[in-house]
Formats: sequence, C-alpha cells, structure tokens
Amino acid sequence: MNGAEALIGTLGNAGVDVCFANPGTSEMQLVAAIDQQPGMRAILGLFEGVVTGAADGYGRMADKPAITLLHLGPGLANGVANLHNAKRAGSPIINLVGDHATYHLQYNSPLTSDLEGVARPMSHWVKVSKSERDLAQIGTEAFSAAISYPGQIATVVVPANHAWDEGSAIAEFGAAPAVQTVPSQVISDTAKALSDAAGPIALFLGGRALREGALEHAGRIATKTGARLICETFPARLQRGAGRVPVERLPYFGEQAEEYLKDFKTIVFCGCEPPVSFFAYPGKPSWLSPEGAKLIRLASKEEEAEGALQGLADALGAPAKSALIQEAVRPPAPEGKLDPAKIGAILAAVMPDQAIVVDEAATSSPPIFPATQGAAQHEWMTLTGGSIGMGLPLAAGAAVACPDRKTIALQADGGGMYTCQALWTMARENLDVTVILLNNGSYAILNIELARVGVQNPGPKALSMLDLRNPAIDWVSISHGMGVPAKKATTAEEFDAALAEALAHKGPRLIEAMI
Amino acid sequence: MNGAEALIGTLGNAGVDVCFANPGTSEMQLVAAIDQQPGMRAILGLFEGVVTGAADGYGRMADKPAITLLHLGPGLANGVANLHNAKRAGSPIINLVGDHATYHLQYNSPLTSDLEGVARPMSHWVKVSKSERDLAQIGTEAFSAAISYPGQIATVVVPANHAWDEGSAIAEFGAAPAVQTVPSQVISDTAKALSDAAGPIALFLGGRALREGALEHAGRIATKTGARLICETFPARLQRGAGRVPVERLPYFGEQAEEYLKDFKTIVFCGCEPPVSFFAYPGKPSWLSPEGAKLIRLASKEEEAEGALQGLADALGAPAKSALIQEAVRPPAPEGKLDPAKIGAILAAVMPDQAIVVDEAATSSPPIFPATQGAAQHEWMTLTGGSIGMGLPLAAGAAVACPDRKTIALQADGGGMYTCQALWTMARENLDVTVILLNNGSYAILNIELARVGVQNPGPKALSMLDLRNPAIDWVSISHGMGVPAKKATTAEEFDAALAEALAHKGPRLIEAMI
Repeated sequence: MNGAEALIGTLGNAGVDVCFANPGTSEMQLVAAIDQQPGMRAILGLFEGVVTGAADGYGRMADKPAITLLHLGPGLANGVANLHNAKRAGSPIINLVGDHATYHLQYNSPLTSDLEGVARPMSHWVKVSKSERDLAQIGTEAFSAAISYPGQIATVVVPANHAWDEGSAIAEFGAAPAVQTVPSQVISDTAKALSDAAGPIALFLGGRALREGALEHAGRIATKTGARLICETFPARLQRGAGRVPVERLPYFGEQAEEYLKDFKTIVFCGCEPPVSFFAYPGKPSWLSPEGAKLIRLASKEEEAEGALQGLADALGAPAKSALIQEAVRPPAPEGKLDPAKIGAILAAVMPDQAIVVDEAATSSPPIFPATQGAAQHEWMTLTGGSIGMGLPLAAGAAVACPDRKTIALQADGGGMYTCQALWTMARENLDVTVILLNNGSYAILNIELARVGVQNPGPKALSMLDLRNPAIDWVSISHGMGVPAKKATTAEEFDAALAEALAHKGPRLIEAMI
Repeated sequence: MNGAEALIGTLGNAGVDVCFANPGTSEMQLVAAIDQQPGMRAILGLFEGVVTGAADGYGRMADKPAITLLHLGPGLANGVANLHNAKRAGSPIINLVGDHATYHLQYNSPLTSDLEGVARPMSHWVKVSKSERDLAQIGTEAFSAAISYPGQIATVVVPANHAWDEGSAIAEFGAAPAVQTVPSQVISDTAKALSDAAGPIALFLGGRALREGALEHAGRIATKTGARLICETFPARLQRGAGRVPVERLPYFGEQAEEYLKDFKTIVFCGCEPPVSFFAYPGKPSWLSPEGAKLIRLASKEEEAEGALQGLADALGAPAKSALIQEAVRPPAPEGKLDPAKIGAILAAVMPDQAIVVDEAATSSPPIFPATQGAAQHEWMTLTGGSIGMGLPLAAGAAVACPDRKTIALQADGGGMYTCQALWTMARENLDVTVILLNNGSYAILNIELARVGVQNPGPKALSMLDLRNPAIDWVSISHGMGVPAKKATTAEEFDAALAEALAHKGPRLIEAMI
C-alpha cells in the first residue's frame, strides 16, 4: 500500500472516523485513501477555517480527534485562527497537511512556503514524514499527541511523494498516553488549606473541571466549605442546566472581574490558571486575583480534574452529594421588540434536553447566559482563544459528533461573517443546527473597547471601522444562498415562533434576530 | 504624540494614504491615529483575507503600499494566505499588527500567540517595536522594505502600550532604496548569445517585464531576433490588448508547458526564473525547460526589467519600434448556452478601455484569456501564489487604487467562496467592480488533478470532495445579502445583456454565469 493508505488506515484503526477536509492537488492521494477507508466520513468545508473550527467542535464533544485535510502552507494558514481557539480549548485534532513532493520543493513553485513555520505557532506537536514508510508510525504518534489530556493539536506534514509511493504498511497504535493525575500531597495540602481558610473561599474551575462529574465533586466541596464555584470566562465546554451543579461565571471586563474576586481570601484553581485580563488597558490591571489572597493550584489544565476534585471532596469529608443543585427555571414568554435578554428567556423555556449551545454571541452573550442557567441540561461552548469566526464551524462539528442532539449556535454578526461558509456544510450534511444570528449591525464590543483603551472623541473614520450597517447585511439571503432555510425575527413573538419551528425540525435553520 | 500617531503620521508623510483594516481592541489606538490622519482612507474588510487581498490588488495597481491593520496573531493568520499570493506577486504591503501590551504578554491571555512566528513565513521583513519611541523609525524602515523593487511584504508588530504611550515623534522617510539594475556585462553577454544563437529563441517574461514599457522593448528584441515572447503562467500584472506588444502565455499543466518549450534552443529570462511544474506528479517532470537548451538570466524578479530589456534591444541594434503589435479583435456575439469561451468573446467585444481584469477563473480561464487578446487595452492580474480566494479581494483593492477605471473580476465559484465577504466591502465603498462569478458547481481543477496524480476509479466519497452542487450555491442571493446587485445568466444573450448593464453603471455588480 502507499503512504497515504497506510496513514489513513492507521488512524482509522486507532478509532478516527471523521475527516473535515478542504483538499487540493497535493492531497489527492489522501482523499483516495479516505475514500477507501471503511467507516470514515469525509466532510467538505468551503474554507479551511470551517474545517478546523468544525474539528474543534467535534473534538470538544467527541473527546477524540477528527482529521483535518488541508492544502499546503496557505491552506493550513487559513485554518490557523480556529486552531488557535482549539489549542486554547484543549481540543484533540489531527491535521494532515499535504506538501509538495520532497524533490519538488527545491523548485520553489508557487505554493511553496515554510509549512512547518506556518504550523508551529498553533500546534502542540508537528512532524514531517521522512519517507512513505514512516507515515503510519507518525500517524500513531500524532494520535497519541492529540489525545493527550485534555487534548492537543497534532499536525502531520505529508509530502505528496510519500503519500503516493508504495511500500508502506499500517502501524498499530499502542497504549494511550498516561493522564497526569494530581499528587495526593497536593490534594491533602489543599484540603488542609481550605479547612484552615478564613474568609470567603472560591473554587475556580476551568477546562475539564466543568464537566458534570467534576462539577458534582465541586458541589460537594462547596457544600462542605461554603466555597463559591466560579467558572473561567471562556469555558471550552460547560455542562449546565437544571439538576446539575451550577457555577457562576467570571465577567469579561477586567475591572468587573477584579471587583468580582476582590473579597476572596482563598482561591483554589482546578483545570485552569488564575484569570487575567483579556487585553491590557492603560492604567488597568492585567492580574485579577486580589492582592493578599491565598491562591492554590489544585490541578492545571493538563492534569486530571475530576479525580482531583473527588479526592479533595473526600479529604475534606464532604457529603456524598452536592447540596448545590440548579433548579429548573422556565421564564415567562417575553413580548415586543427583540433583545438578547428576551432571546435568553425564550431559549431557556424551550431548550431541548441535552442541547449543545455554541456561544459566539459576543456582547449579546452576557444577558443570554444567566437566563439559561435553569434550562434543560445542555452544553455551553465558548470562544476560548478570542479569535472570532469559530461559532458556525464549531456548531457544524459538534452536530457531526452528536447527531442525536440539537446544536444551537448563538452567533454575533461580526464573527459570523468570518466563516459564513459553514452554513453550506450544515446544509450539505443536513446537520441538526439552529443558528441564532444576532444582528446588531456592529462590532459592538469595539465601541466599548475604544473608550476603554483611552480613545476620546473618535471621529467618523474610526467609528466606521466598527460599523456593519453600511450596507446592512441580509443574513436571510446569505443563508438561502448557501442552502440553509432562514427567517428574520424582529419581535419576541416572531423569534419564539421561528425558534419553535427550527427546533421542531431536524436539519439546519437560521433565525436572523434583529437586536 | 503617542506611538500610534507617530507611526501613522510617518507613513502618511511617506505617501501612504489607504488602510485596509479589520481591527480589534489592541489596534484601537491605531484606528484613532488613522482617524486623525488627513487624507488617509480607511476601508473595512469583514475578514482579514479580504484585507490582505485588497492590499495586494492595491499594491499591484498603485505600485505603492497600502497599510493593512490586523488583530494579533490569529487576525494576521487569517490574512496570511493572501499575503502569500502578494509575496509571490512582488506587491508592496505594510502590515500593522497589534499585539498585547509588552507587560501583558507574560499572562498568556487568550489571544496570545507567537505573532512573529505567524508573520515570518509570508513576510519579507518583520519587526517588533521596542518602545513607543522607535515606532516611527520602524515605519520608515517598513516603508523602505515594502517599496524595494518590485515590492515586498513588510510586517510591523505594534504592542498596544507602544501605541498608546506618549513621547513619540514623526520620523522622516529618507531616500528610496536603490533599484538593482542589471550589469551592462550581463546585457552585452546576453546580446552576444542571442546574436550567435542557432535555432528557435524565446524571451521568457515575468514580473515587471510584463508592463507596457518593458514589453515594447521585448517587442523590439523579437523584431530583431525572431524570438517568441512568452509570459509566465501566473503574471502579477500583464498589460495587454490592442496596440500593445502581445505575449504568448505558458500553459498551466506541466506536460503541456514542457511540450510548448521543447523546441527552443535558447531561452532568455527576464523578471522571473525558469518555469517549473505547479505541482509534482508521479513520473512527470518538475523542470520544464528543454534539456540542452541554453538558459540565460537577463534579470531576476528583483532586478529592474524595463532598463534591462531596453539595454538588450539597443545592444542588439533592434529597431526603435516593435513590429509585433496586437491588432484589435472584436469577436462576433455568440449565442446559446453559456460557456467560458463565449464569456471570453463577449468580454473581448465590450472590454472598457484600461479595464483591470482580475483572473481567478481557474479552469474557466484558458478559454477566456486568448479570446481577450485583441480587446481594448487592459491589465490582467492572476493568482500568483496559487492560494485560492484572492480574486474578489484583489478586485476590491485594484478598484480602490484606480477609481476611474473599471475592474472586472473573473471569479471561479470555489475560490469565490473563500473570501465572499469582499462583496460587502465593494458595496460599502461603491467600488466600480463587475464580478463575473463562474459557477460550474465544482472544484473542477481537482477532477483533472485526481487522475493526473494517479488516482484510479475514485469512489463517491472522493468525488464528493470536489463537488459544490449539493447544495447548489446561489450566488445571486449571497451577493444581495452583502449589498451587491446581482443577476444570473444561463445563455450568452443573458450574459451579454447583464454585462452591458453592469459596465454601464458605476459601482459593484455581480453576474452569476452558469457554465
């Protein structure tokens, strides 16, 4: 078999069964190998940012990697921004990037670039094959890197001749890499510190500590110690809703976050590092934890979170069950002109059980998130790396991973335009995604940030850089153009009806919410 | 003044008066400085690939750099693919990329990345400011790098605190960098070789050798020596049409190119290197020049082309005027079902004088290019780096550079979807662009390439990766959604009428040509 067949066969045997792809000439052998691989699904994206964003959404929901198939340095570059988000999310992804045949590189033909240079900034792990024979072995290494807890970005560069040359064979994937657990000493030290702690305590949770099982133990700790449970501002995947242990969420703006945390005397971190300001601002702090507070790292993002929390709960002698449990809350139906708070109330009332919410709602998110706290159980996935344009692709990938659950994309208009091509993939694959496109005709966050960084009296040129109203974007037309049925809603009643219709149907729908 | 004001003021004084932008929080001070800079136009793109592609189009037509304004590593990454094309085109561009404040980087907040690592692969020149005081000086260096013949990609990383800190001042741009001219010995050696040459001679032209003035001297050389004039396959900017010296164009596929060149005994290269195959293919050659032929480099891409050709023509004792002049050809109006050849014939008949044609027509280009050889004088700009998605942005940028000329974008559907957001910028700025969207519902080139790389009997999964018909993309809807009036044409008559209407109006129009 050729190198491409050996690589794809190896990954297939290891359990990879989805490939998000935007291939070109140098990946044709990989396309052919995927074609022949039984059980491997191939999903086309019409831009590489769709491909990598979908792989992120898939990885967050499946907890295993999909393949991406990308075309040389420029094709990979188009996918880098959403790989940045995926890297921050701790998502498992295996990128397969075709390159020119090794003997062709010397000729510097038009698509030649420093491919490893493009790959490195947003990959945890990069390798270039040395021959057709080592591609399969590299596949096992990439798989191992990708599934390293909580998940990593592994990039394999595949020169075209290694893909097409015969003489390769499938390699067996051995044992999965060990998960790094928190030492018992750290757990007992943390328990002692919490037992001795004076004043308000916070248990600050991120990464895998936001899954249901870990949250249950966090709730036990809260029950025993009175600690407040606070979630990082941009969780990769937060499991929430009625019957689960609820968490508060740290506000986005640094000064609000600082105010939020100021009274805590002890903060224990699990699954993340102490929070910092998203951006720096003149005269405002980057570090947000209160001076003089005791900061304790229970588990980093790369250490197993659920076991650490269970160990801590047990060491504290916490009760077997959390007393902190979210009640079901179904807000009354709002009326009149639509706004994000009303969208939150309506969504909370009709949220399907085990829905997957992708939140790239930007300035519209703060009212929607708390409104859905007591909705039916669901996932909440956010923009972990701050690179806008992840929402629609992420929703597509999550829907591929979980075809029996409804995915709901809360998508701001500015970010939505980045990767609007994802709508086409939703239509093509009939993915069960309801897109709530929040159209405020603006990069609204930048209107706030302009003042926060100290710009006084911005003129018309500056303000025009933040404005999406000239011309107004008609998302219903764009959605129709890419094959996704769409409706516009300007009132709460219209939105309620459109959402009910979208949720009642299997397959993609877009609601353009005019806010 | 603060660092941002000093940098923008410095670039403004040097003659930069256009900024293509997609800024974020870390660029707000730069936005404010641009706002205050008299005569500097700020143009928003809703995706960074639009921003950099527009800067490429502007640079090719204006022969001077525009600024791009990009948001940290991920924002730059989104623009990298079109910077790759611009780098290959020899376009002058100055990228200004905001970064976190220097003291904030240690906190590894969500948007932190290896920004220099992202910049380096597609930049000729990269520099990070060390303080607010050196930003202006770096601006002069970036300008100098960008205008180095024929043009370079210069990237300035601007930490946010350097942008907002006070205490900077405008720097003066000194002398422009010297243009590297071809030594007279090379010219006289080349003249001697041509005088002595036996057998067919080709003068192979690329880069700046494809401008009207250089072509006139190439025509003189052809008149004297009988040399055939051949143009590189993907010219950045070819000046052609009735009354100009015509060139042949090397075919795309390697084996056709090899066949095309096989009988030449002497080939003189000016403005480019000897051609190589775009991709490698099993059993096919990468190097396309005939074995045993004498290959002479008159001027590299970085050496001044027009003077070298003039010197060579003079050394050969060529006549003062080229005898080789393109006649006007106005093909008769075709009828019936639309295809690329008919589009070429119709376009040739109605081409406005001094139009700018942007060709990302992919498989539809080969019939259109020769059909327009004898049209009114126009520019022809192609996909120099092979990274699809340059067409619509390039057209937008060219139209900004040349508001009094009609820009015509020949855009294949696959590449068009990459950066369809460029339509919105065309609408917003009322750019005089007619987009001919060639809808064949396919990555058609890959159907050809699949066989050429040796894939036999591809299955349905493989073929689905090349197919854009499920669902069919409705470009008229997408265009309307972004504010550009659009019409669909399925016959030559419909296309003719739609094109006449589009050319008669100032402002953007899209014609979806069903082929």
